[in-house]
Amino acid sequence: MARIEKLVVVGVGLIGGSFALALKGAGAVGRVIGVGRGASNIRRAMELGIIDAAGALDATTLGDADLVLLAAPVGQMRSIMRSIAPRLGARTVVTDAGSTKQDVVELARRELKTSLARFVPGHPIAGTEKSGAEAAFAELYRNRRVVLTPLEENEPRAVALARASWERCGASVSELKPEVHDAVLAAVSHLPHVLAYALVDQVARQHNAEQLFSFAAGGFRDFTRIASSHPEMWRDICLANRRALLAELGRYRGELEEIRVILERGDAQALEKLFSGARAARERWLKDEER
Amino acid sequence: MARIEKLVVVGVGLIGGSFALALKGAGAVGRVIGVGRGASNIRRAMELGIIDAAGALDATTLGDADLVLLAAPVGQMRSIMRSIAPRLGARTVVTDAGSTKQDVVELARRELKTSLARFVPGHPIAGTEKSGAEAAFAELYRNRRVVLTPLEENEPRAVALARASWERCGASVSELKPEVHDAVLAAVSHLPHVLAYALVDQVARQHNAEQLFSFAAGGFRDFTRIASSHPEMWRDICLANRRALLAELGRYRGELEEIRVILERGDAQALEKLFSGARAARERWLKDEER
Repeated sequence: MARIEKLVVVGVGLIGGSFALALKGAGAVGRVIGVGRGASNIRRAMELGIIDAAGALDATTLGDADLVLLAAPVGQMRSIMRSIAPRLGARTVVTDAGSTKQDVVELARRELKTSLARFVPGHPIAGTEKSGAEAAFAELYRNRRVVLTPLEENEPRAVALARASWERCGASVSELKPEVHDAVLAAVSHLPHVLAYALVDQVARQHNAEQLFSFAAGGFRDFTRIASSHPEMWRDICLANRRALLAELGRYRGELEEIRVILERGDAQALEKLFSGARAARERWLKDEER
Repeated sequence: MARIEKLVVVGVGLIGGSFALALKGAGAVGRVIGVGRGASNIRRAMELGIIDAAGALDATTLGDADLVLLAAPVGQMRSIMRSIAPRLGARTVVTDAGSTKQDVVELARRELKTSLARFVPGHPIAGTEKSGAEAAFAELYRNRRVVLTPLEENEPRAVALARASWERCGASVSELKPEVHDAVLAAVSHLPHVLAYALVDQVARQHNAEQLFSFAAGGFRDFTRIASSHPEMWRDICLANRRALLAELGRYRGELEEIRVILERGDAQALEKLFSGARAARERWLKDEER
Protein backbone atom coordinates (compact mmCIF):
# COMPACT_ATOMS: atom_id res chain seq x y z
CA MET A 1 0.00 0.00 0.00
CA ALA A 2 0.99 3.63 -0.43
CA ARG A 3 2.70 4.79 2.76
CA ILE A 4 0.50 7.09 4.84
CA GLU A 5 2.70 10.14 5.36
CA LYS A 6 0.13 11.90 7.50
CA LEU A 7 -2.63 10.20 9.47
CA VAL A 8 -5.24 12.20 11.35
CA VAL A 9 -7.16 10.42 14.09
CA VAL A 10 -10.30 12.21 15.25
CA GLY A 11 -11.12 10.78 18.67
CA VAL A 12 -8.00 9.24 20.22
CA GLY A 13 -9.62 6.59 22.41
CA LEU A 14 -9.34 2.83 22.47
CA ILE A 15 -10.32 2.50 18.80
CA GLY A 16 -8.52 5.46 17.26
CA GLY A 17 -5.48 5.14 19.51
CA SER A 18 -5.05 1.44 18.77
CA PHE A 19 -5.30 2.11 15.01
CA ALA A 20 -2.49 4.68 15.28
CA LEU A 21 -0.33 2.39 17.42
CA ALA A 22 -0.84 -0.58 15.09
CA LEU A 23 0.09 1.41 11.97
CA LYS A 24 3.10 2.90 13.72
CA GLY A 25 4.15 -0.57 14.82
CA ALA A 26 3.86 -1.78 11.22
CA GLY A 27 5.93 1.12 9.94
CA ALA A 28 3.02 2.09 7.72
CA VAL A 29 2.65 5.69 8.82
CA GLY A 30 4.73 8.85 9.05
CA ARG A 31 3.17 11.45 11.34
CA VAL A 32 0.03 10.95 13.40
CA ILE A 33 -2.04 13.97 14.38
CA GLY A 34 -4.68 13.54 17.07
CA VAL A 35 -7.83 15.59 17.32
CA GLY A 36 -10.10 15.43 20.34
CA ARG A 37 -12.24 17.45 22.68
CA GLY A 38 -10.61 16.19 25.87
CA ALA A 39 -7.35 18.10 26.35
CA SER A 40 -6.06 15.75 29.03
CA ASN A 41 -6.76 12.69 26.89
CA ILE A 42 -4.88 14.21 23.95
CA ARG A 43 -1.97 15.07 26.26
CA ARG A 44 -1.94 11.50 27.52
CA ALA A 45 -2.03 10.20 23.93
CA MET A 46 1.12 12.20 23.20
CA GLU A 47 2.87 10.98 26.35
CA LEU A 48 2.04 7.42 25.36
CA GLY A 49 3.46 7.96 21.86
CA ILE A 50 0.12 7.27 20.20
CA ILE A 51 0.11 10.60 18.39
CA ASP A 52 2.96 12.93 17.43
CA ALA A 53 1.02 16.16 17.75
CA ALA A 54 -2.38 17.59 18.51
CA GLY A 55 -4.40 19.14 15.70
CA ALA A 56 -7.85 20.56 15.07
CA LEU A 57 -10.60 20.18 12.47
CA ASP A 58 -8.96 22.82 10.28
CA ALA A 59 -7.23 23.08 6.93
CA THR A 60 -3.76 22.91 8.51
CA THR A 61 -4.51 19.52 10.00
CA LEU A 62 -6.69 18.13 7.22
CA GLY A 63 -5.52 19.73 3.96
CA ASP A 64 -2.50 17.49 3.41
CA ALA A 65 -3.63 14.39 5.31
CA ASP A 66 -3.45 11.07 3.44
CA LEU A 67 -5.91 9.33 5.72
CA VAL A 68 -8.38 10.54 8.34
CA LEU A 69 -9.95 8.08 10.77
CA LEU A 70 -13.15 9.26 12.43
CA ALA A 71 -13.24 7.41 15.74
CA ALA A 72 -15.31 9.79 17.86
CA PRO A 73 -18.67 8.78 19.33
CA VAL A 74 -21.38 8.39 16.69
CA GLY A 75 -23.31 11.25 18.27
CA GLN A 76 -20.58 13.69 17.24
CA MET A 77 -20.33 12.43 13.68
CA ARG A 78 -22.60 15.00 12.06
CA SER A 79 -20.76 18.03 13.38
CA ILE A 80 -17.39 16.46 12.66
CA MET A 81 -18.35 15.71 9.06
CA ARG A 82 -19.72 19.20 8.63
CA SER A 83 -16.44 20.66 9.94
CA ILE A 84 -14.10 18.56 7.87
CA ALA A 85 -15.98 18.60 4.51
CA PRO A 86 -14.66 21.96 3.25
CA ARG A 87 -11.15 21.42 4.65
CA LEU A 88 -10.15 18.00 3.39
CA GLY A 89 -7.41 17.76 0.77
CA ALA A 90 -8.30 16.68 -2.74
CA ARG A 91 -6.63 13.30 -2.19
CA THR A 92 -7.46 12.79 1.50
CA VAL A 93 -9.18 9.48 2.18
CA VAL A 94 -11.56 9.37 5.14
CA THR A 95 -12.83 6.31 6.95
CA ASP A 96 -14.69 5.81 10.19
CA ALA A 97 -15.00 3.25 12.95
CA GLY A 98 -18.66 3.60 13.85
CA SER A 99 -20.53 0.54 15.08
CA THR A 100 -23.50 1.19 12.80
CA LYS A 101 -23.24 1.97 9.11
CA GLN A 102 -26.56 2.99 7.54
CA ASP A 103 -26.75 6.12 9.67
CA VAL A 104 -23.13 7.04 8.95
CA VAL A 105 -23.64 6.57 5.23
CA GLU A 106 -26.74 8.75 5.35
CA LEU A 107 -24.86 11.47 7.24
CA ALA A 108 -21.92 11.29 4.86
CA ARG A 109 -24.19 11.66 1.84
CA ARG A 110 -25.65 14.76 3.42
CA GLU A 111 -22.51 16.37 4.83
CA LEU A 112 -19.39 15.32 2.92
CA LYS A 113 -20.30 16.81 -0.47
CA THR A 114 -17.39 16.50 -2.92
CA SER A 115 -15.36 14.34 -0.54
CA LEU A 116 -17.92 11.54 -0.58
CA ALA A 117 -15.95 9.64 -3.23
CA ARG A 118 -13.09 9.31 -0.76
CA PHE A 119 -15.14 8.39 2.33
CA VAL A 120 -15.06 4.64 2.97
CA PRO A 121 -17.34 3.64 5.87
CA GLY A 122 -15.86 1.01 8.17
CA HIS A 123 -16.35 -0.85 11.41
CA PRO A 124 -13.60 -2.68 13.26
CA ILE A 125 -15.29 -5.45 15.25
CA ALA A 126 -13.02 -5.16 18.22
CA GLY A 127 -13.02 -3.40 21.53
CA THR A 128 -12.99 -3.94 25.23
CA GLU A 129 -15.23 -2.42 27.88
CA LYS A 130 -12.42 0.10 28.57
CA SER A 131 -12.12 3.45 26.89
CA GLY A 132 -9.76 6.41 26.40
CA ALA A 133 -6.22 6.72 25.00
CA GLU A 134 -4.94 4.93 28.08
CA ALA A 135 -6.74 1.77 26.94
CA ALA A 136 -5.26 1.73 23.41
CA PHE A 137 -2.87 -1.03 22.37
CA ALA A 138 -1.30 -2.00 19.04
CA GLU A 139 -2.63 -5.58 18.99
CA LEU A 140 -6.33 -4.73 19.35
CA TYR A 141 -7.09 -5.53 15.72
CA ARG A 142 -4.84 -8.55 15.27
CA ASN A 143 -6.94 -11.43 13.86
CA ARG A 144 -10.13 -9.44 14.34
CA ARG A 145 -12.60 -8.58 11.62
CA VAL A 146 -13.12 -5.18 10.06
CA VAL A 147 -16.14 -4.54 7.87
CA LEU A 148 -16.03 -1.93 5.12
CA THR A 149 -19.27 -0.82 3.49
CA PRO A 150 -17.98 1.02 0.40
CA LEU A 151 -20.22 3.43 -1.46
CA GLU A 152 -20.94 3.21 -5.19
CA GLU A 153 -19.34 6.63 -5.50
CA ASN A 154 -16.06 5.54 -3.89
CA GLU A 155 -12.80 5.88 -5.78
CA PRO A 156 -11.23 2.41 -5.92
CA ARG A 157 -7.99 3.94 -4.60
CA ALA A 158 -9.84 5.11 -1.46
CA VAL A 159 -11.31 1.68 -0.74
CA ALA A 160 -7.92 0.07 -1.34
CA LEU A 161 -6.22 2.44 1.11
CA ALA A 162 -8.81 1.87 3.84
CA ARG A 163 -8.59 -1.88 3.34
CA ALA A 164 -4.79 -1.94 3.34
CA SER A 165 -4.60 0.19 6.49
CA TRP A 166 -6.75 -2.22 8.47
CA GLU A 167 -4.87 -5.17 7.06
CA ARG A 168 -1.59 -3.62 8.22
CA CYS A 169 -3.19 -3.53 11.69
CA GLY A 170 -3.50 -7.32 11.44
CA ALA A 171 -7.24 -7.38 10.75
CA SER A 172 -9.18 -9.43 8.26
CA VAL A 173 -11.29 -7.11 6.09
CA SER A 174 -14.74 -7.94 4.65
CA GLU A 175 -17.11 -5.87 2.57
CA LEU A 176 -20.85 -5.78 3.24
CA LYS A 177 -23.76 -3.60 2.24
CA PRO A 178 -24.51 -1.12 5.06
CA GLU A 179 -27.95 -2.64 5.71
CA VAL A 180 -26.50 -6.16 5.89
CA HIS A 181 -23.81 -4.96 8.28
CA ASP A 182 -26.41 -3.39 10.55
CA ALA A 183 -28.66 -6.46 10.56
CA VAL A 184 -25.75 -8.80 11.31
CA LEU A 185 -24.42 -6.65 14.11
CA ALA A 186 -27.90 -6.20 15.59
CA ALA A 187 -28.12 -10.00 15.89
CA VAL A 188 -24.70 -10.83 17.31
CA SER A 189 -23.69 -7.67 19.14
CA HIS A 190 -26.38 -5.04 19.72
CA LEU A 191 -29.07 -7.44 20.94
CA PRO A 192 -26.72 -9.26 23.39
CA HIS A 193 -25.71 -5.90 24.86
CA VAL A 194 -29.35 -4.95 25.40
CA LEU A 195 -30.08 -8.36 26.95
CA ALA A 196 -27.16 -8.08 29.36
CA TYR A 197 -28.09 -4.56 30.45
CA ALA A 198 -31.70 -5.72 30.88
CA LEU A 199 -30.75 -8.64 33.12
CA VAL A 200 -28.60 -6.53 35.43
CA ASP A 201 -31.34 -3.90 35.56
CA GLN A 202 -33.90 -6.57 36.46
CA VAL A 203 -31.80 -7.92 39.32
CA ALA A 204 -30.93 -4.43 40.57
CA ARG A 205 -34.62 -3.43 40.66
CA GLN A 206 -35.74 -6.25 42.92
CA HIS A 207 -36.34 -5.52 46.60
CA ASN A 208 -33.75 -8.14 47.59
CA ALA A 209 -31.20 -7.04 44.97
CA GLU A 210 -28.31 -7.21 47.41
CA GLN A 211 -29.11 -10.81 48.32
CA LEU A 212 -29.54 -11.75 44.66
CA PHE A 213 -26.19 -10.28 43.65
CA SER A 214 -24.49 -11.95 46.61
CA PHE A 215 -25.32 -15.37 45.14
CA ALA A 216 -24.39 -14.49 41.56
CA ALA A 217 -21.38 -16.43 40.32
CA GLY A 218 -19.15 -16.87 37.28
CA GLY A 219 -21.94 -17.55 34.82
CA PHE A 220 -23.65 -14.30 35.72
CA ARG A 221 -20.35 -12.45 35.55
CA ASP A 222 -19.56 -13.53 31.99
CA PHE A 223 -23.13 -13.18 30.77
CA THR A 224 -23.24 -9.58 32.00
CA ARG A 225 -19.67 -8.51 31.18
CA ILE A 226 -20.92 -6.41 28.26
CA ALA A 227 -23.30 -4.59 30.63
CA SER A 228 -20.16 -2.81 31.83
CA SER A 229 -19.81 -1.22 28.39
CA HIS A 230 -19.99 2.51 27.88
CA PRO A 231 -23.67 3.55 28.36
CA GLU A 232 -23.64 6.63 26.10
CA MET A 233 -21.91 4.76 23.31
CA TRP A 234 -24.41 1.92 23.49
CA ARG A 235 -27.34 4.29 23.72
CA ASP A 236 -26.16 5.84 20.45
CA ILE A 237 -25.59 2.48 18.77
CA CYS A 238 -28.99 1.15 19.80
CA LEU A 239 -30.80 4.25 18.62
CA ALA A 240 -28.83 4.53 15.38
CA ASN A 241 -29.63 0.92 14.56
CA ARG A 242 -32.99 0.68 16.22
CA ARG A 243 -34.89 -0.68 13.25
CA ALA A 244 -32.66 -3.74 12.93
CA LEU A 245 -32.37 -4.03 16.71
CA LEU A 246 -36.14 -3.96 17.16
CA ALA A 247 -36.45 -6.74 14.59
CA GLU A 248 -33.98 -8.90 16.50
CA LEU A 249 -35.58 -8.02 19.82
CA GLY A 250 -38.97 -9.05 18.43
CA ARG A 251 -37.50 -12.33 17.27
CA TYR A 252 -35.96 -12.90 20.70
CA ARG A 253 -39.24 -12.23 22.46
CA GLY A 254 -40.76 -14.90 20.22
CA GLU A 255 -37.94 -17.25 21.22
CA LEU A 256 -38.66 -16.60 24.93
CA GLU A 257 -42.36 -17.13 24.37
CA GLU A 258 -41.57 -20.56 22.89
CA ILE A 259 -39.46 -21.39 25.92
CA ARG A 260 -42.19 -20.19 28.26
CA VAL A 261 -44.65 -22.56 26.63
CA ILE A 262 -42.15 -25.43 26.84
CA LEU A 263 -41.62 -24.76 30.54
CA GLU A 264 -45.33 -24.36 31.25
CA ARG A 265 -46.10 -27.74 29.80
CA GLY A 266 -42.96 -29.32 31.31
CA ASP A 267 -41.76 -30.55 27.95
CA ALA A 268 -38.39 -32.09 28.82
CA GLN A 269 -37.71 -33.30 25.29
CA ALA A 270 -38.27 -29.92 23.64
CA LEU A 271 -36.19 -28.16 26.26
CA GLU A 272 -33.28 -30.53 25.89
CA LYS A 273 -33.48 -30.31 22.12
CA LEU A 274 -33.25 -26.52 22.27
CA PHE A 275 -30.39 -26.55 24.79
CA SER A 276 -28.36 -29.23 23.05
CA GLY A 277 -28.91 -27.65 19.65
CA ALA A 278 -27.68 -24.32 20.97
CA ARG A 279 -24.66 -25.90 22.61
CA ALA A 280 -23.75 -27.73 19.41
CA ALA A 281 -24.10 -24.54 17.34
CA ARG A 282 -21.88 -22.67 19.77
CA GLU A 283 -19.22 -25.41 19.75
CA ARG A 284 -19.19 -25.41 15.93
CA TRP A 285 -18.75 -21.65 15.96
CA LEU A 286 -15.85 -21.82 18.43
CA LYS A 287 -14.16 -24.46 16.28
CA ASP A 288 -14.56 -22.31 13.16
CA GLU A 289 -13.14 -19.34 15.05
CA GLU A 290 -10.00 -21.28 15.90
CA ARG A 291 -9.18 -21.93 12.29
CA MET B 1 -15.16 -30.82 63.02
CA ALA B 2 -15.27 -34.58 63.57
CA ARG B 3 -12.93 -36.25 61.10
CA ILE B 4 -14.81 -38.04 58.34
CA GLU B 5 -13.41 -41.57 58.44
CA LYS B 6 -15.47 -42.73 55.51
CA LEU B 7 -16.90 -40.50 52.81
CA VAL B 8 -19.15 -41.85 50.08
CA VAL B 9 -19.52 -39.79 46.92
CA VAL B 10 -22.43 -40.78 44.71
CA GLY B 11 -21.66 -39.34 41.28
CA VAL B 12 -17.93 -38.69 40.92
CA GLY B 13 -18.02 -35.86 38.44
CA LEU B 14 -16.80 -32.28 38.62
CA ILE B 15 -18.83 -31.53 41.75
CA GLY B 16 -18.46 -34.79 43.71
CA GLY B 17 -14.87 -35.33 42.61
CA SER B 18 -13.79 -31.83 43.60
CA PHE B 19 -15.46 -32.23 47.02
CA ALA B 20 -13.44 -35.43 47.61
CA LEU B 21 -10.19 -33.85 46.41
CA ALA B 22 -10.70 -30.76 48.57
CA LEU B 23 -11.40 -32.77 51.74
CA LYS B 24 -8.44 -35.03 51.04
CA GLY B 25 -6.25 -32.00 50.50
CA ALA B 26 -7.43 -30.57 53.82
CA GLY B 27 -6.70 -33.85 55.62
CA ALA B 28 -10.33 -33.95 56.67
CA VAL B 29 -11.19 -37.37 55.35
CA GLY B 30 -10.01 -40.99 55.70
CA ARG B 31 -11.30 -43.22 52.93
CA VAL B 32 -13.34 -42.03 49.96
CA ILE B 33 -15.64 -44.50 48.22
CA GLY B 34 -17.04 -43.56 44.83
CA VAL B 35 -20.34 -44.78 43.46
CA GLY B 36 -21.34 -44.19 39.87
CA ARG B 37 -22.98 -45.74 36.86
CA GLY B 38 -20.13 -45.06 34.47
CA ALA B 39 -17.48 -47.74 35.01
CA SER B 40 -14.82 -45.90 33.03
CA ASN B 41 -15.43 -42.65 34.92
CA ILE B 42 -15.07 -44.46 38.27
CA ARG B 43 -11.86 -46.12 37.06
CA ARG B 44 -10.51 -42.72 36.01
CA ALA B 45 -11.48 -41.28 39.42
CA MET B 46 -9.37 -43.99 41.08
CA GLU B 47 -6.42 -43.36 38.77
CA LEU B 48 -6.62 -39.66 39.57
CA GLY B 49 -6.65 -40.37 43.32
CA ILE B 50 -10.07 -38.80 43.75
CA ILE B 51 -11.53 -41.95 45.32
CA ASP B 52 -9.83 -44.88 47.07
CA ALA B 53 -12.28 -47.54 45.99
CA ALA B 54 -15.48 -48.13 44.09
CA GLY B 55 -18.64 -48.99 45.98
CA ALA B 56 -22.33 -49.48 45.35
CA LEU B 57 -25.59 -48.31 46.87
CA ASP B 58 -25.51 -51.19 49.36
CA ALA B 59 -25.11 -51.74 53.10
CA THR B 60 -21.39 -52.48 52.78
CA THR B 61 -20.74 -49.07 51.27
CA LEU B 62 -23.31 -47.07 53.20
CA GLY B 63 -23.73 -48.77 56.60
CA ASP B 64 -20.62 -47.32 58.23
CA ALA B 65 -20.26 -44.11 56.21
CA ASP B 66 -19.88 -40.86 58.14
CA LEU B 67 -20.93 -38.67 55.24
CA VAL B 68 -22.60 -39.34 51.90
CA LEU B 69 -22.61 -36.68 49.20
CA LEU B 70 -25.25 -37.12 46.52
CA ALA B 71 -23.74 -35.44 43.46
CA ALA B 72 -25.47 -37.33 40.67
CA PRO B 73 -27.81 -35.57 38.20
CA VAL B 74 -31.08 -34.42 39.79
CA GLY B 75 -33.02 -36.77 37.52
CA GLN B 76 -31.47 -39.78 39.30
CA MET B 77 -32.12 -38.46 42.78
CA ARG B 78 -35.36 -40.31 43.45
CA SER B 79 -34.02 -43.77 42.69
CA ILE B 80 -30.79 -43.04 44.56
CA MET B 81 -32.69 -41.92 47.67
CA ARG B 82 -34.93 -44.94 47.46
CA SER B 83 -31.89 -47.23 47.28
CA ILE B 84 -29.92 -45.67 50.10
CA ALA B 85 -32.77 -45.10 52.60
CA PRO B 86 -32.82 -48.62 54.10
CA ARG B 87 -29.03 -49.04 53.98
CA LEU B 88 -27.69 -45.90 55.66
CA GLY B 89 -26.01 -46.25 59.04
CA ALA B 90 -27.74 -44.84 62.11
CA ARG B 91 -25.24 -41.98 62.27
CA THR B 92 -24.61 -41.47 58.57
CA VAL B 93 -25.13 -37.85 57.49
CA VAL B 94 -26.28 -37.27 53.91
CA THR B 95 -26.06 -34.08 51.91
CA ASP B 96 -26.53 -33.28 48.24
CA ALA B 97 -25.25 -30.85 45.66
CA GLY B 98 -28.36 -30.31 43.58
CA SER B 99 -28.87 -26.93 41.91
CA THR B 100 -32.51 -26.74 43.04
CA LYS B 101 -33.71 -27.39 46.55
CA GLN B 102 -37.50 -27.49 46.88
CA ASP B 103 -37.74 -30.56 44.65
CA VAL B 104 -34.90 -32.32 46.50
CA VAL B 105 -36.51 -31.58 49.87
CA GLU B 106 -39.82 -32.92 48.62
CA LEU B 107 -38.18 -36.11 47.36
CA ALA B 108 -36.25 -36.57 50.60
CA ARG B 109 -39.43 -36.23 52.68
CA ARG B 110 -40.98 -38.94 50.57
CA GLU B 111 -38.06 -41.33 50.23
CA LEU B 112 -35.60 -41.02 53.10
CA LYS B 113 -37.93 -42.08 55.95
CA THR B 114 -36.03 -42.40 59.25
CA SER B 115 -32.87 -40.89 57.76
CA LEU B 116 -34.52 -37.54 57.05
CA ALA B 117 -33.14 -36.08 60.29
CA ARG B 118 -29.63 -36.59 58.93
CA PHE B 119 -30.24 -35.31 55.39
CA VAL B 120 -29.00 -31.74 54.96
CA PRO B 121 -29.85 -30.33 51.51
CA GLY B 122 -27.07 -28.28 49.98
CA HIS B 123 -25.97 -26.48 46.83
CA PRO B 124 -22.38 -25.48 46.10
CA ILE B 125 -22.56 -22.46 43.78
CA ALA B 126 -19.58 -23.42 41.72
CA GLY B 127 -18.91 -25.27 38.54
CA THR B 128 -17.53 -24.93 35.08
CA GLU B 129 -19.03 -25.99 31.79
CA LYS B 130 -16.87 -29.13 32.00
CA SER B 131 -18.01 -32.39 33.54
CA GLY B 132 -16.75 -35.81 34.67
CA ALA B 133 -14.07 -36.92 37.14
CA GLU B 134 -11.44 -35.65 34.74
CA ALA B 135 -12.67 -32.09 35.35
CA ALA B 136 -12.50 -32.26 39.17
CA PHE B 137 -9.99 -30.13 41.07
CA ALA B 138 -9.44 -29.44 44.76
CA GLU B 139 -9.78 -25.66 44.51
CA LEU B 140 -13.22 -25.56 42.90
CA TYR B 141 -14.94 -24.43 46.10
CA ARG B 142 -12.30 -22.06 47.41
CA ASN B 143 -13.94 -18.70 48.16
CA ARG B 144 -17.17 -19.85 46.55
CA ARG B 145 -20.56 -19.93 48.24
CA VAL B 146 -22.40 -23.02 49.38
CA VAL B 147 -26.05 -22.80 50.40
CA LEU B 148 -27.52 -25.23 52.90
CA THR B 149 -31.30 -25.42 53.30
CA PRO B 150 -31.60 -27.40 56.56
CA LEU B 151 -34.88 -29.08 57.46
CA GLU B 152 -36.72 -28.53 60.74
CA GLU B 153 -36.23 -32.21 61.42
CA ASN B 154 -32.43 -32.06 61.04
CA GLU B 155 -30.18 -33.11 63.91
CA PRO B 156 -27.93 -30.13 64.71
CA ARG B 157 -24.94 -32.47 64.47
CA ALA B 158 -25.85 -33.30 60.87
CA VAL B 159 -26.10 -29.65 59.85
CA ALA B 160 -22.82 -28.91 61.62
CA LEU B 161 -21.03 -31.73 59.79
CA ALA B 162 -22.34 -30.68 56.37
CA ARG B 163 -21.36 -27.06 57.07
CA ALA B 164 -17.91 -27.94 58.36
CA SER B 165 -17.21 -30.19 55.36
CA TRP B 166 -17.89 -27.42 52.88
CA GLU B 167 -15.91 -24.96 54.96
CA ARG B 168 -12.93 -27.32 54.90
CA CYS B 169 -13.24 -27.16 51.10
CA GLY B 170 -12.67 -23.42 51.40
CA ALA B 171 -16.28 -22.39 50.79
CA SER B 172 -18.37 -19.81 52.57
CA VAL B 173 -21.60 -21.43 53.81
CA SER B 174 -25.01 -19.71 54.05
CA GLU B 175 -28.36 -21.05 55.13
CA LEU B 176 -31.55 -20.23 53.23
CA LYS B 177 -35.08 -21.59 53.10
CA PRO B 178 -35.44 -23.90 50.06
CA GLU B 179 -37.96 -21.61 48.36
CA VAL B 180 -35.71 -18.58 48.84
CA HIS B 181 -32.75 -20.51 47.44
CA ASP B 182 -34.73 -21.47 44.36
CA ALA B 183 -36.02 -17.95 43.74
CA VAL B 184 -32.54 -16.43 44.12
CA LEU B 185 -30.91 -18.97 41.82
CA ALA B 186 -33.70 -18.61 39.25
CA ALA B 187 -32.84 -14.89 39.05
CA VAL B 188 -29.04 -14.99 38.91
CA SER B 189 -28.31 -18.38 37.39
CA HIS B 190 -31.20 -20.29 35.81
CA LEU B 191 -32.64 -17.34 33.86
CA PRO B 192 -29.24 -16.29 32.44
CA HIS B 193 -28.66 -19.85 31.23
CA VAL B 194 -32.02 -19.88 29.46
CA LEU B 195 -31.31 -16.47 27.92
CA ALA B 196 -27.92 -17.57 26.62
CA TYR B 197 -29.28 -20.79 25.11
CA ALA B 198 -32.12 -18.79 23.56
CA LEU B 199 -29.78 -16.30 21.89
CA VAL B 200 -27.57 -18.97 20.35
CA ASP B 201 -30.67 -20.83 19.20
CA GLN B 202 -32.03 -17.66 17.63
CA VAL B 203 -28.83 -17.00 15.69
CA ALA B 204 -28.50 -20.65 14.66
CA ARG B 205 -32.06 -20.72 13.28
CA GLN B 206 -31.61 -17.80 10.90
CA HIS B 207 -31.10 -18.52 7.21
CA ASN B 208 -27.77 -16.67 7.27
CA ALA B 209 -26.60 -18.27 10.54
CA GLU B 210 -23.11 -18.93 9.23
CA GLN B 211 -22.64 -15.28 8.24
CA LEU B 212 -24.02 -14.10 11.60
CA PHE B 213 -21.68 -16.33 13.61
CA SER B 214 -18.73 -15.26 11.47
CA PHE B 215 -19.12 -11.68 12.72
CA ALA B 216 -19.70 -12.60 16.38
CA ALA B 217 -16.89 -11.42 18.65
CA GLY B 218 -15.78 -11.43 22.26
CA GLY B 219 -18.99 -9.97 23.68
CA PHE B 220 -21.05 -12.73 22.10
CA ARG B 221 -18.57 -15.33 23.26
CA ASP B 222 -18.78 -14.33 26.94
CA PHE B 223 -22.51 -13.73 26.87
CA THR B 224 -23.10 -17.23 25.52
CA ARG B 225 -20.41 -19.12 27.45
CA ILE B 226 -23.05 -20.72 29.67
CA ALA B 227 -24.87 -21.97 26.56
CA SER B 228 -22.06 -24.53 26.40
CA SER B 229 -23.30 -25.99 29.70
CA HIS B 230 -24.57 -29.55 29.94
CA PRO B 231 -28.00 -29.66 28.21
CA GLU B 232 -29.50 -32.54 30.23
CA MET B 233 -28.40 -31.02 33.51
CA TRP B 234 -29.90 -27.66 32.61
CA ARG B 235 -33.07 -29.24 31.30
CA ASP B 236 -33.49 -30.90 34.72
CA ILE B 237 -32.70 -27.72 36.64
CA CYS B 238 -35.11 -25.62 34.59
CA LEU B 239 -37.93 -28.12 34.95
CA ALA B 240 -37.29 -28.73 38.65
CA ASN B 241 -37.39 -25.00 39.31
CA ARG B 242 -39.82 -24.02 36.63
CA ARG B 243 -42.21 -22.10 38.87
CA ALA B 244 -39.52 -19.68 40.03
CA LEU B 245 -37.92 -19.64 36.60
CA LEU B 246 -41.21 -18.78 34.90
CA ALA B 247 -41.65 -15.91 37.35
CA GLU B 248 -38.20 -14.51 36.47
CA LEU B 249 -38.79 -15.10 32.77
CA GLY B 250 -42.07 -13.20 32.99
CA ARG B 251 -40.29 -10.34 34.71
CA TYR B 252 -37.62 -10.34 32.03
CA ARG B 253 -40.17 -10.25 29.24
CA GLY B 254 -41.63 -7.18 30.96
CA GLU B 255 -38.12 -5.65 31.04
CA LEU B 256 -37.72 -6.27 27.28
CA GLU B 257 -41.15 -4.79 26.61
CA GLU B 258 -40.06 -1.62 28.42
CA ILE B 259 -36.91 -1.47 26.31
CA ARG B 260 -38.91 -2.08 23.15
CA VAL B 261 -41.10 0.94 23.97
CA ILE B 262 -38.04 3.06 24.73
CA LEU B 263 -36.48 2.11 21.40
CA GLU B 264 -39.73 2.63 19.47
CA ARG B 265 -40.06 6.16 20.73
CA GLY B 266 -36.31 6.81 20.43
CA ASP B 267 -36.04 7.89 24.06
CA ALA B 268 -32.30 8.49 24.43
CA GLN B 269 -32.57 9.64 28.03
CA ALA B 270 -34.48 6.58 29.26
CA LEU B 271 -32.15 4.24 27.40
CA GLU B 272 -29.03 5.84 28.81
CA LYS B 273 -30.55 5.81 32.30
CA LEU B 274 -31.23 2.08 32.06
CA PHE B 275 -27.78 1.29 30.64
CA SER B 276 -25.84 3.45 33.08
CA GLY B 277 -27.89 2.22 36.05
CA ALA B 278 -27.17 -1.38 35.06
CA ARG B 279 -23.48 -0.68 34.59
CA ALA B 280 -23.26 1.02 38.00
CA ALA B 281 -25.07 -1.88 39.69
CA ARG B 282 -22.72 -4.36 38.07
CA GLU B 283 -19.63 -2.37 39.10
CA ARG B 284 -20.89 -2.22 42.71
CA TRP B 285 -21.42 -5.96 42.66
CA LEU B 286 -17.91 -6.63 41.33
CA LYS B 287 -16.45 -4.41 44.03
CA ASP B 288 -18.41 -6.25 46.72
CA GLU B 289 -17.21 -9.55 45.29
CA GLU B 290 -13.59 -8.49 45.64
CA ARG B 291 -13.89 -7.90 49.36
